[in-house]
Amino acid sequence: MKNFMDENFVLDTKTAQTLYHDHAKKLPIIDYHCHLNPAWIAEDHKFDNLAEIWLVGDHYKWRAMRTNGVDERFCTGADTSWYEKFEKWAETVPYTMRNPLYHWTHLELKSAFGIDKVLNPSTAREIFDECTAKLRTPEYSARGLMKKYNVETVCTTDDPIDSLEHHISLKKEGFEIKVLPTWRPDKAMAVEVPSEFRTYIETLSNVSGVKISKYQDVIDALQKRHDFFASVGCKLADHGIEEFYAEDYTQAEIDAIFNKVYGGKELTHEEILKFKSAMMVEFAIMDHASDWTQQFHYGAIRNNNSRLFKTLGPDTGFDSIGDFTVAKNMSKFLNRLDTNNQLAKTILYNLNPRDNDLITTMIGNFQDGSVAGKIQFGSGWWFLDQKPGMEAQMNSLSVLGLLSRFVGMLTDSRSFLSYPRHEYFRRILCNLIGNDVENGLLPASELDFMKQMVENISYYNAKDFFKF
Amino acid sequence: MKNFMDENFVLDTKTAQTLYHDHAKKLPIIDYHCHLNPAWIAEDHKFDNLAEIWLVGDHYKWRAMRTNGVDERFCTGADTSWYEKFEKWAETVPYTMRNPLYHWTHLELKSAFGIDKVLNPSTAREIFDECTAKLRTPEYSARGLMKKYNVETVCTTDDPIDSLEHHISLKKEGFEIKVLPTWRPDKAMAVEVPSEFRTYIETLSNVSGVKISKYQDVIDALQKRHDFFASVGCKLADHGIEEFYAEDYTQAEIDAIFNKVYGGKELTHEEILKFKSAMMVEFAIMDHASDWTQQFHYGAIRNNNSRLFKTLGPDTGFDSIGDFTVAKNMSKFLNRLDTNNQLAKTILYNLNPRDNDLITTMIGNFQDGSVAGKIQFGSGWWFLDQKPGMEAQMNSLSVLGLLSRFVGMLTDSRSFLSYPRHEYFRRILCNLIGNDVENGLLPASELDFMKQMVENISYYNAKDFFKF
Amino acid sequence: MKNFMDENFVLDTKTAQTLYHDHAKKLPIIDYHCHLNPAWIAEDHKFDNLAEIWLVGDHYKWRAMRTNGVDERFCTGADTSWYEKFEKWAETVPYTMRNPLYHWTHLELKSAFGIDKVLNPSTAREIFDECTAKLRTPEYSARGLMKKYNVETVCTTDDPIDSLEHHISLKKEGFEIKVLPTWRPDKAMAVEVPSEFRTYIETLSNVSGVKISKYQDVIDALQKRHDFFASVGCKLADHGIEEFYAEDYTQAEIDAIFNKVYGGKELTHEEILKFKSAMMVEFAIMDHASDWTQQFHYGAIRNNNSRLFKTLGPDTGFDSIGDFTVAKNMSKFLNRLDTNNQLAKTILYNLNPRDNDLITTMIGNFQDGSVAGKIQFGSGWWFLDQKPGMEAQMNSLSVLGLLSRFVGMLTDSRSFLSYPRHEYFRRILCNLIGNDVENGLLPASELDFMKQMVENISYYNAKDFFKF
Repeated sequence: MKNFMDENFVLDTKTAQTLYHDHAKKLPIIDYHCHLNPAWIAEDHKFDNLAEIWLVGDHYKWRAMRTNGVDERFCTGADTSWYEKFEKWAETVPYTMRNPLYHWTHLELKSAFGIDKVLNPSTAREIFDECTAKLRTPEYSARGLMKKYNVETVCTTDDPIDSLEHHISLKKEGFEIKVLPTWRPDKAMAVEVPSEFRTYIETLSNVSGVKISKYQDVIDALQKRHDFFASVGCKLADHGIEEFYAEDYTQAEIDAIFNKVYGGKELTHEEILKFKSAMMVEFAIMDHASDWTQQFHYGAIRNNNSRLFKTLGPDTGFDSIGDFTVAKNMSKFLNRLDTNNQLAKTILYNLNPRDNDLITTMIGNFQDGSVAGKIQFGSGWWFLDQKPGMEAQMNSLSVLGLLSRFVGMLTDSRSFLSYPRHEYFRRILCNLIGNDVENGLLPASELDFMKQMVENISYYNAKDFFKF
Repeated sequence: MKNFMDENFVLDTKTAQTLYHDHAKKLPIIDYHCHLNPAWIAEDHKFDNLAEIWLVGDHYKWRAMRTNGVDERFCTGADTSWYEKFEKWAETVPYTMRNPLYHWTHLELKSAFGIDKVLNPSTAREIFDECTAKLRTPEYSARGLMKKYNVETVCTTDDPIDSLEHHISLKKEGFEIKVLPTWRPDKAMAVEVPSEFRTYIETLSNVSGVKISKYQDVIDALQKRHDFFASVGCKLADHGIEEFYAEDYTQAEIDAIFNKVYGGKELTHEEILKFKSAMMVEFAIMDHASDWTQQFHYGAIRNNNSRLFKTLGPDTGFDSIGDFTVAKNMSKFLNRLDTNNQLAKTILYNLNPRDNDLITTMIGNFQDGSVAGKIQFGSGWWFLDQKPGMEAQMNSLSVLGLLSRFVGMLTDSRSFLSYPRHEYFRRILCNLIGNDVENGLLPASELDFMKQMVENISYYNAKDFFKF
Repeated sequence: MKNFMDENFVLDTKTAQTLYHDHAKKLPIIDYHCHLNPAWIAEDHKFDNLAEIWLVGDHYKWRAMRTNGVDERFCTGADTSWYEKFEKWAETVPYTMRNPLYHWTHLELKSAFGIDKVLNPSTAREIFDECTAKLRTPEYSARGLMKKYNVETVCTTDDPIDSLEHHISLKKEGFEIKVLPTWRPDKAMAVEVPSEFRTYIETLSNVSGVKISKYQDVIDALQKRHDFFASVGCKLADHGIEEFYAEDYTQAEIDAIFNKVYGGKELTHEEILKFKSAMMVEFAIMDHASDWTQQFHYGAIRNNNSRLFKTLGPDTGFDSIGDFTVAKNMSKFLNRLDTNNQLAKTILYNLNPRDNDLITTMIGNFQDGSVAGKIQFGSGWWFLDQKPGMEAQMNSLSVLGLLSRFVGMLTDSRSFLSYPRHEYFRRILCNLIGNDVENGLLPASELDFMKQMVENISYYNAKDFFKF
């Protein structure tokens, strides 16, 4: 029987252990997509206690607690103490067995705090106290944690209207870890509510210094911000979309649609689709021109629970996996750009794993030999960021593409404690390859290549691909 | 090499064996969804022979026989003898290797009749004779079999117009096994054929004593029957639907649609969808008010074979898995109820396993902490009620929800010999957990919790959840 | 640790090894669907070098090379030498680890050339030279390779207007391997471009000797060609379709649609669907009347990359997996034929594995006992022709149908070196069964039946089913 989460956690074979311990483990972390608050890095945020760092904003844990019958007061309520919240979480932890939360929790306890104990109601108090005490030492500040985890580069997620002041100050200061912005212009194509769109565009105008009265002005303003992001070190764009928008449209139509919505009128469904289709092309062309990588996270249906949306707002644990039909539009969008040789390096992230094989074959359509792994299938996203989810993504990529060219893991997280997910990923990767070797599916004689492959997927592929 | 179907069948690790033999095995069966004929329980039906209990109405076996090249005469024909039918089935059995029928068959032979032999043409005669002899003893009557399998509660599937006379008489009589009705009002929303709907509504009127001339009368009549079902111990509703119906509608529209169809006119497709959408809300509100659990079995396409439908009717083995788009409507329906806090405890059963992860994330949207596991992902249904199907359902529920809060297995069966499916399920459950422990993915130190978890999923969760 | 690709490659248990070595391995190959060029068989084509036989027309390898950052010149370019191309492929091979190309490559090296070395840049030259020398000997001609692999029957893929001259001459000559045509009439329903359709129909008229001025003439001409194909030994039809076409239509509508498109006018989308729906029924009736087997390969989206389509044409590696909704139309099409008892033996091949279970239940709807395994779920097609893909197909067929009645493997290949895919398939099949036996999921006592089952799936089922 293997021990729980010992040094060979998830590493079932000698080959996997060698690949991980002698190769994957030692490499720095490039976290090329996350939702860290750059202000917290700039000001080197200190955490007050374990409940704060673990439970604030963590909708994964809230969902588990609600499913476990825990009242909302202990998830997001203002009238419960840190420790009361933590206690409810500790009660819930055993009920999360087989859920990634169980592994994440114990990986974080072990890697950040050196705690080997299992969290449950009987250990809750001592674990809370020990971790809280450590969190109050300098080593456990935002920056301290990043250093502890050997982070080399992180890319946050930022709006075109953001000032990027913290990225700039960190760069100026010479902070040893690269903290780069990512261009996430979702709001610039969110034309569903005219008044909100108007407000956004007005802010964009102010920030960019471009007077906006027509569609082309918006593009000009965005291009200025895009250039600005590039000047601060941005290398990636990111888009959160339900579906791929690839309607046919004319420039005249788009001009008119902009005027209509900017003038305060609601758009028809068809107009919305056309507008988004146009904006996606505009963004994609900018990214290509700047040699950035564009990322698409598609397929979520969000804010399904109106009752709790009213009190808690978005991103509080009420989103789920959609079942959109995507292949033809995804192809049309990518092809539209490729036709003019304006298709940037691209990463596609699906939320419904039933699309895994669709995507791994789709990316093959646009690999043109210009860059190794030019079009990427992103690592298991959100709900799929767990062992079977990551294995499914890597297995699909393996049999229908080239795993060897994969740019690997990212946390997509708001937390400074999520870096062990890179360790988790690397162990899983090494285990897949180790199993194949020991089962005679890969030749042990080529172990040197596999060592390099594991190092590439853990670190070097991302470094080269994004040009960090 | 492990032996076939010995005491450690499906239990690949010591941990799994401990969990099953010392914990899961001993617990009674709560079969909260089945299609047993309550009359057969009331009258304590005696079976004449093995072919009768195995082959009457068993469309799983018929499908296998047809696929194996067996003529319909030996499946459903009136001109072949019991033994001729059985012989054809015995010939087919070896051809079902790797199909759940192979396991079910031998589990039933072993657990009901103590037979360890493998069924094939050479053993057909002796097995038929031995089982038939046993079936003619009192121990093997309908009630005898239920007791043999340690059944505590069963929920049958009943129409609002059913008299529930057998449930009532069994209760009066003090039969030691709870036999409860389930509310299955599919026909009350089947408005496709006006004349059939009219006939149904007239019967409903008679049975309920409510004179029906308008839509609200139907609801009143149904509410009376709902109350009646509750008085007989009903705790669950069930709906067999192709898709989730969640159209927008007004009360005036629904009133008019009812008048139209009740008046004998065919409805448009849109009217049908609106009517079903309204009825689903009505039913859901009734279930919530009564603190029942509502079940939705969705996604089958039925009666695909017109030629054989004409001679054999429905439920004869010509149904299959559909590929409906469901996420947005499922969300809209559940949210519509949740908005007013009228969402009852709910179980969602999909027929297409490609929706597993969609559902496990969907249920998370409506977990509000009020009841542990309030919204459930139902155990592998129909075609998915087999080892890989159950594993896929539990694995999805594990990584995207809380397996620990799962209400577990049901047979969904018409047969008094299907109870070993609970044994099969429990073995599979214990095996999943056992494998995780022995692979170091769960801590052996927490075995006590896992023992309780296995007992909960096998029995206590259902008992508590449904309030039996 | 198992050795890479030794005699027990993929065979993880003793039972699997017995099943493969003593049963599956020895049987001849029936390759009932491939894209071999019949002219090359007739003229007994000789290969000049390893790059020619491996890289000409092999879009699987091109896709891998492009993904690996190899310039198009080395895939399809006219300005690079055979060896330059081969060198780029050899560089790419290590990067294909875990992709079926890695296994196929080494299986082909071993089984055709007796080479146990791993292909990588350091072995490229010697492997190229050794294989090229062998290819220039008579033993390695097109026919030589077919004999080396113990091929008994191959079915090529042919258009109704093809002369079948090579099939006829091979038959006349008495070539020991059966080379049979397959009826693939896709162009006869390709009405998207009126001028291309007109040209095709005019050729059909010439070839068949039937003067064509109306729809019924087309059918008459096709029927004559169908009869001709039958006279040359054709036993199978094949259709490459995006979706199943099952629109309602009247004969008058189809007549008018034909006149319109034949007259040079573009059809509406609805007219195209109706026309294809009608043609599919016509073809299906012909196949049923001739006791052929009809095959449907559905679900690809093709030519996604317009830029490279312009320079390279179709079938060059720019196709991928679609996500069509198919269940209801597939059912309607099959039922339409079954209603009149005109449903031929049928094989359904899906490209999106998310439809596996949909198909395995769909085929059950039309198994009527007339032929064992009358409706078949085809072996993993195209992208799915790899170890996990074949396992998924066989596992789905096992739990939802009868694996035992499966007609087994085909190469679907243009290459005379693809026959080891049958070996690969047989090893995977034996391994699945072996694992079940050793895990106690199948009884070791029934090994004789399993031996027969493995032989049937490898060879006898196809021989009997297609009546070769």
